[in-house]
Amino acid sequence: MALELYWGSGSPYSWRVQLALELKRLDYESHELQFSKQEHKSPQMLRMNPRGRVPVLKDGELVVFESLACLYYLDRKYPDPPLFGRTPEEAATVVRVICEYQAYVEGHLNQIVTAVFFGNIDEQLEQVMRAIHLVAGEARTIEGRLSKSEWLVGEHVSAADLVVFPGIMLLLRAMEKREAGELRSRFLPMETTYPSIARWIERMEALPGYDKTYPPHWREGAPRG
Amino acid sequence: MALELYWGSGSPYSWRVQLALELKRLDYESHELQFSKQEHKSPQMLRMNPRGRVPVLKDGELVVFESLACLYYLDRKYPDPPLFGRTPEEAATVVRVICEYQAYVEGHLNQIVTAVFFGNIDEQLEQVMRAIHLVAGEARTIEGRLSKSEWLVGEHVSAADLVVFPGIMLLLRAMEKREAGELRSRFLPMETTYPSIARWIERMEALPGYDKTYPPHWREGAPRG
Repeated sequence: MALELYWGSGSPYSWRVQLALELKRLDYESHELQFSKQEHKSPQMLRMNPRGRVPVLKDGELVVFESLACLYYLDRKYPDPPLFGRTPEEAATVVRVICEYQAYVEGHLNQIVTAVFFGNIDEQLEQVMRAIHLVAGEARTIEGRLSKSEWLVGEHVSAADLVVFPGIMLLLRAMEKREAGELRSRFLPMETTYPSIARWIERMEALPGYDKTYPPHWREGAPRG
Repeated sequence: MALELYWGSGSPYSWRVQLALELKRLDYESHELQFSKQEHKSPQMLRMNPRGRVPVLKDGELVVFESLACLYYLDRKYPDPPLFGRTPEEAATVVRVICEYQAYVEGHLNQIVTAVFFGNIDEQLEQVMRAIHLVAGEARTIEGRLSKSEWLVGEHVSAADLVVFPGIMLLLRAMEKREAGELRSRFLPMETTYPSIARWIERMEALPGYDKTYPPHWREGAPRG
């Protein structure tokens, strides 16, 4: 088996690549690393990615890291179904939506999630509230796209969906924690606050192989909602 | 003329796309916007990009923004010469180097440049010194790549070079300002501190059409140090 993926449970970056591998129905050897045991920083992993981050994709002798590079490599090497647009025009929008997510959403979203998980929202309330405001604004834009289309770009699932989805799931998981407190009502219940995003999540969950990609340690946690 | 580019002088994001248009020898209508007059936030520009940022690329009816999306669109629509790798393996490295630059360099580099241009290094000395340390570390990695190869990835200029180059030029311009003070010696003279990057800059400057892309308001500034 030529393809191997090193990944960690709950890493949204890993999840993107797992989803791509399933969508393309590729066989791969799955290596789950335990963050708690620092397995992603082992000598073997640092030889492949000196930054000690996951995901790391191996295809024979080739090593790829950075999740977007993994997605793009998979799409060039195994083009069916295409993830980066079926036309140049669609490609432009796929990459634009990914860039906008990375530039204007991801950092703020990570700040919120980290504050909830570390239980120190109160210590940085002003920054967290600003991040909530910015993420909520961007979520309204995404809600707008999804109110007109089943997928973020075009008529098919694309790399844009794979990049954005794990981040939103991570945010929702944080909102379900007791520590989220009153922040919860800014996003939950999704069916009311962002109904089109909620329906898109259901479509993502119905994709082939989705269940195999769901972060295993999340299953043991509190039920959604 | 179908292609139009809206750009601002000194915007590294604009410069990437200008370089790509020249490399691909595409004719385009050039619209320089004056940041000082807020021309990038005009109603016409906001209709094309609600974020009011440049570059904005138009190809007939299609509007593309976010510099990476512009580069990728141009490469899909006008594939010669290819900018995102000639093989899947090369494509993986091109996108990986771009992702690494964006994730681990760009934010810190912008922090340094902003502090120099606003003349408030002293007020945030600790953060600026940390940013300098991180950027210098990443520059050593880039220096290492360029000591073995003429271009950042593979045997040809690629999107990786176009993404990284304008950022490095912006940093060097900041270092030449009087306000940079002692920070200067961390990067200048490049011929001594980062000789392979210095030679790569010369190769970039020798690319066809390069002179047309050089930020016009930089020509009026102090000579390079």
